Amino acid sequence: MIIGGSASQNLAAKVANLLHDRLCPIETHKFPDGERYIRIKGEIPDEVVVIQSTGYPQDENFMELFLIIKTLKDIGADKVKAVIPYLGYSRQDKRFKPGEAVSVKIIAELLEAAGADEVFSVNLHEHNIIKFFNIPAHELSAIPLLAKHLSPIVDDPIIVAPDKGALAHAKTMAEIIGCEYDYMEKVRISPEKVETRLKSFDVEGRSAIIVDDIISTGGTIVNAARILRSQGANDIKVACVHAVLVDDALLRIFSVGVDDVIATDTIKSEVSRVSVAPLIVEALKGD
Amino acid sequence: MIIGGSASQNLAAKVANLLHDRLCPIETHKFPDGERYIRIKGEIPDEVVVIQSTGYPQDENFMELFLIIKTLKDIGADKVKAVIPYLGYSRQDKRFKPGEAVSVKIIAELLEAAGADEVFSVNLHEHNIIKFFNIPAHELSAIPLLAKHLSPIVDDPIIVAPDKGALAHAKTMAEIIGCEYDYMEKVRISPEKVETRLKSFDVEGRSAIIVDDIISTGGTIVNAARILRSQGANDIKVACVHAVLVDDALLRIFSVGVDDVIATDTIKSEVSRVSVAPLIVEALKGD
Repeated sequence: MIIGGSASQNLAAKVANLLHDRLCPIETHKFPDGERYIRIKGEIPDEVVVIQSTGYPQDENFMELFLIIKTLKDIGADKVKAVIPYLGYSRQDKRFKPGEAVSVKIIAELLEAAGADEVFSVNLHEHNIIKFFNIPAHELSAIPLLAKHLSPIVDDPIIVAPDKGALAHAKTMAEIIGCEYDYMEKVRISPEKVETRLKSFDVEGRSAIIVDDIISTGGTIVNAARILRSQGANDIKVACVHAVLVDDALLRIFSVGVDDVIATDTIKSEVSRVSVAPLIVEALKGD
Repeated sequence: MIIGGSASQNLAAKVANLLHDRLCPIETHKFPDGERYIRIKGEIPDEVVVIQSTGYPQDENFMELFLIIKTLKDIGADKVKAVIPYLGYSRQDKRFKPGEAVSVKIIAELLEAAGADEVFSVNLHEHNIIKFFNIPAHELSAIPLLAKHLSPIVDDPIIVAPDKGALAHAKTMAEIIGCEYDYMEKVRISPEKVETRLKSFDVEGRSAIIVDDIISTGGTIVNAARILRSQGANDIKVACVHAVLVDDALLRIFSVGVDDVIATDTIKSEVSRVSVAPLIVEALKGD
């Protein structure tokens, strides 16, 4: 049985459809004072899959997830698998300064305390976050899905990692599409001047796909797109897994000449055109 | 050492002052994407008291509290006492319908999982909520503080419980002020007509203090005040512990002829004039 939290209703329905499984009716609303109400309706089988993303508003989405999992355990579920397509607080995965909260480690412990028996998430900020879980935890990658979506609609593009951190994603995507990939690097071209440009290829007259795991404020993408455009790229697409899209991020990205932005539905957004449902289904089946 | 969460900064400072204890510097802000950042600065002693109320936005305030407690434990605190002046989710303390989350029970379990060793709260919705905690938990009553604040500024009032549930509060307050108390009850005065009125006393020409533990939407207070006014009360004050005050609750209360509303600072509000700091100090000292 599948339960969709309020942040992943559509995705939960898609997963249930693909699995020919039952989508459990759940009643959730907010009381006038802002508190979340949760009621799980119908018979509860031994094993339940809860799908709830934890983008903005992160704390509300996490609390709803805790309430759902714990209630399922209280009313009879033996095993609850939590699918968290976007894991909020992932960027606070180290104590960068003394006294800082390692927030995502605390989230992992709270999920376990709430009764989660197994966790699935998509493209974590760092793979090592998996180690904060004492229960089985799995990281899935949505980059192949993005590549398969783009493959038929692009013509020999260069896949561009906007920084070296995204290079592995660019390589994966390029291998599936069957094209070249490269990353942006800072090059000192004179004692006074640093220029950011593609490491190896000339993008002039070619199309480019910038790929990254997440778009938050959009700063990294804006920088990369501006440079590619100035160097003569004739078509620039952006592909990302998690469309966090703070404030006017999308507008800023389009305003520097990006032609298209494609994201997955790990977070609901107006550019979420590739569903991670098949990825989740595959992981649940293989489990 | 005392730590104030962002929902109880002023109260935490008052408690620290009364205890001649150190208020620990804490850095907390939100990232652009909405995630909370927590950093606890300075040396951590063996025992720390964290004060954080959990009114609106409840989930953010709870998550901040979880992050603070767990981080304190991670960086060296042996014992963390959590003072939660207003405990959010308290009204969902039973499974009223099958499948409902018993939210406040889950909150109790998460607080324990976060590392709280002892919990203090003020005027719980039901005293039995204490039983959801497996760690020592204490309920404090702010009604005597409200009574002591009102005593010098009222002249032989009737203390009014707006329903039978608040009768114990009215009795406590009346005993401290040294005056009469009563409660509103529904009386069938003809086969077709039910009237709500004071059980025993005639309020005409007298002053009244309506007392309750919480004002949420204000509906109960508005009803009681309207009736007291129509029955000739010449001065109506409202005293409550928790000023939740959903939307225009305060305006609605004043608009039916209430002269003054007095609340404690368990929740920050513009009518929070009585501090529960002495109550918390007394409980911490006696502990």
